[in-house]
Amino acid sequence: MDDAPGHPPRFSFTEMSEIVLPQHANALGTAFGGVVLSWIDVCGAIAAQRHCGRIAVTAAIDDMQFLAPIRVGDVVRLTARVNAAFRTSLEVEVQVEREDIATRERTLCADALLTFVNRDEEGCPVPAPPLAPETDEEEARVRAAKERRAERLAKKRAG
Amino acid sequence: MDDAPGHPPRFSFTEMSEIVLPQHANALGTAFGGVVLSWIDVCGAIAAQRHCGRIAVTAAIDDMQFLAPIRVGDVVRLTARVNAAFRTSLEVEVQVEREDIATRERTLCADALLTFVNRDEEGCPVPAPPLAPETDEEEARVRAAKERRAERLAKKRAG
Amino acid sequence: MDDAPGHPPRFSFTEMSEIVLPQHANALGTAFGGVVLSWIDVCGAIAAQRHCGRIAVTAAIDDMQFLAPIRVGDVVRLTARVNAAFRTSLEVEVQVEREDIATRERTLCADALLTFVNRDEEGCPVPAPPLAPETDEEEARVRAAKERRAERLAKKRAG
Amino acid sequence: MDDAPGHPPRFSFTEMSEIVLPQHANALGTAFGGVVLSWIDVCGAIAAQRHCGRIAVTAAIDDMQFLAPIRVGDVVRLTARVNAAFRTSLEVEVQVEREDIATRERTLCADALLTFVNRDEEGCPVPAPPLAPETDEEEARVRAAKERRAERLAKKRAG
Amino acid sequence: MDDAPGHPPRFSFTEMSEIVLPQHANALGTAFGGVVLSWIDVCGAIAAQRHCGRIAVTAAIDDMQFLAPIRVGDVVRLTARVNAAFRTSLEVEVQVEREDIATRERTLCADALLTFVNRDEEGCPVPAPPLAPETDEEEARVRAAKERRAERLAKKRAG
Amino acid sequence: MDDAPGHPPRFSFTEMSEIVLPQHANALGTAFGGVVLSWIDVCGAIAAQRHCGRIAVTAAIDDMQFLAPIRVGDVVRLTARVNAAFRTSLEVEVQVEREDIATRERTLCADALLTFVNRDEEGCPVPAPPLAPETDEEEARVRAAKERRAERLAKKRAG
Repeated sequence: MDDAPGHPPRFSFTEMSEIVLPQHANALGTAFGGVVLSWIDVCGAIAAQRHCGRIAVTAAIDDMQFLAPIRVGDVVRLTARVNAAFRTSLEVEVQVEREDIATRERTLCADALLTFVNRDEEGCPVPAPPLAPETDEEEARVRAAKERRAERLAKKRAG
Repeated sequence: MDDAPGHPPRFSFTEMSEIVLPQHANALGTAFGGVVLSWIDVCGAIAAQRHCGRIAVTAAIDDMQFLAPIRVGDVVRLTARVNAAFRTSLEVEVQVEREDIATRERTLCADALLTFVNRDEEGCPVPAPPLAPETDEEEARVRAAKERRAERLAKKRAG
Repeated sequence: MDDAPGHPPRFSFTEMSEIVLPQHANALGTAFGGVVLSWIDVCGAIAAQRHCGRIAVTAAIDDMQFLAPIRVGDVVRLTARVNAAFRTSLEVEVQVEREDIATRERTLCADALLTFVNRDEEGCPVPAPPLAPETDEEEARVRAAKERRAERLAKKRAG
Repeated sequence: MDDAPGHPPRFSFTEMSEIVLPQHANALGTAFGGVVLSWIDVCGAIAAQRHCGRIAVTAAIDDMQFLAPIRVGDVVRLTARVNAAFRTSLEVEVQVEREDIATRERTLCADALLTFVNRDEEGCPVPAPPLAPETDEEEARVRAAKERRAERLAKKRAG
Repeated sequence: MDDAPGHPPRFSFTEMSEIVLPQHANALGTAFGGVVLSWIDVCGAIAAQRHCGRIAVTAAIDDMQFLAPIRVGDVVRLTARVNAAFRTSLEVEVQVEREDIATRERTLCADALLTFVNRDEEGCPVPAPPLAPETDEEEARVRAAKERRAERLAKKRAG
Repeated sequence: MDDAPGHPPRFSFTEMSEIVLPQHANALGTAFGGVVLSWIDVCGAIAAQRHCGRIAVTAAIDDMQFLAPIRVGDVVRLTARVNAAFRTSLEVEVQVEREDIATRERTLCADALLTFVNRDEEGCPVPAPPLAPETDEEEARVRAAKERRAERLAKKRAG
């Protein structure tokens, strides 16, 4: 395993695990939306910080879908990765899976696309380190992120 | 003021206030993204619950922009309203403003569009109570929400 | 609605909504006293801050009655208003209602009277902005607050 | 020391210590009112539970004074004792002191009088175990509590 | 009782009480390990701070056994005492008992030995105030702590 | 990367990341011991649960060293792995590293050895799934864990 303690960080991929406790639940015994959003934000921010080398602050959530409920007693596993680096901003994708403790099966429960802006100490946007795709899958990710960004900018200009 | 204690609830408009404490901050002394997201989710869920008459669970965040930083010591005020009711779902808009304590000036700091699905006890989607716009402003809101929904459905079918 | 985002704050009336989650409950499934007290303190402090234009610190709870239990799953609505402004202090009243989600009926669950002192940066009491009652109801509030204050001062001198 | 682990509990006296952390503070670096109120409520409830032998729920705060600020880094020590047992209710006093870590000096920072009602599983008030004063100091406490209660009942009948 | 408010602190013995709420529980309804560990750390740190007269930071947990489960609704009572003071460090023992509310019986649920190092403002270890045992029981405690320390140092040199 | 979403879990290795916020700090601006202990407990419990296929409850912390301070603004990365499976219990090791955001350098800040017991629904210990070491490094881990366990049992019999 090449990411064990002591090795250089794989800065574009961040993993986070949590146990869903009663303090995270709503009255139905499922994880409260706000709690899951907090975890997504932390996980995405770490991925962005590792990429940019400075504290990252969330600029936008472009899309976030809850796909399946998460229950008290579940283990959840969040994985964040930088999809693309633009001039001063990043698109980060965060996925949330629940793990069935008995069967170890994983189910995708939430999927989110966040934008982080790389800012200096005065809060001014500064160029973000580029992200060079190395595989076909990574290239497809960058391309899709660029298309989403173009759409968002077009929508902003329109409305 | 027609919404004082004892009067019937104005179910389509929810207000929430918070004082930003160090426990809500990141290392820069501004409100942590995850904390603001939690507040937005609670405020939006109350608006949806008041409309539907049952516990509402967030289905998606369609768009969420952080527009200005919120600092420790600020008072924040969240306002949520139902933009439109579709067959079994609602679009809820949540706005977050900071108040300058000395000048009482308000600044819009975040704006979010959330989707809630109206589900019965077994978790099956059931028809949501309709929302009849009464003013031109309300009609424009419903129309804009319907357009956004059509776009989202088109994108889903495409991708 | 005259208090929508963008309008000047109605500084003497503060509204706060919360969903009662398992993390707020005691072993009986009702909201824990300390949690409700925290919400009351935040709501009262915001009302005082909006009146005085600076960070307000609670000086005393003169009276606080729990009237009905609040259960997990309830929406609670807090409303705070300044009853009267004395030389350097304010009396603020906070009411806590639960809302039945299905019937939208509200029940008053707690009622509290708090005193805030208006202090400068060094912590010295400074004159509080006056509160001019405009309606008969407001005048009655100011009068009742003055009587309670006279009683408290008399008791303090006695004991 | 007669209250060491293993000895029978002195049910009328409860002690609680806390370190004041940034998560307990307001923007001024002092303990937030709501946090101190939470600690007071827990400490008073334990004293009441130990006396009654069942889960106690706060009925009222009759009086609570903040006397001196508590700062991040302070150790606070709460002590609660049952002042008097009435037919179905108790008056509990809670004192909050800060300890100067360097000098070990203690300063009284808050003093609160709370009422707890002894309720059965259905929530109906049931007789509270009597409290027999053993010393002159304890007798004086019971007498003062009875006078405060008579005053409160008179005020309630009047208003 | 010689440790009532106003008396000098007995700095070598710290007491803390908590009510176990749903927010402290795991999916089985028992207190979550991490929560109990937090309480143990706070209680031990206060005992160390009272001994050393400055903020204490945990250096190690040498041994911690969970002996019996703690349930939602239980009152837990933590007691910490300094077992021995070495050149710049302290061994502190923390015991956690649950109290049966109805029977007032106490059960030892956890027992922990922690090491604190006495550091100055720059973080450098400085001599810890000595602890002079006064009774046979205290002398036995100091002796046992010294033996454990010798063992730990031997193990460290070996491994 | 063989542990991406969708692949079977590597149940013997758990990773968790956190951003250190002011709510996690003590008065010195470093992560509070109790908070780090909570994270260690969650991370270790997930590793144990993934191995045993059921909810795991911490039985003991055999050893836990804080090696370097963790500061507000740091990213911490916890990694837990099962060192050895005994008849009904597991030894789990948890390491906590801080990451320097600018240099991406990692420093080991805490190292802990925990014991978890595999219990059925009634709380009775049941056999734990065996852990077959596959590499020399894994074999050395199992051997070291067995030696530590023998020592602990010998000490228990002695004292």
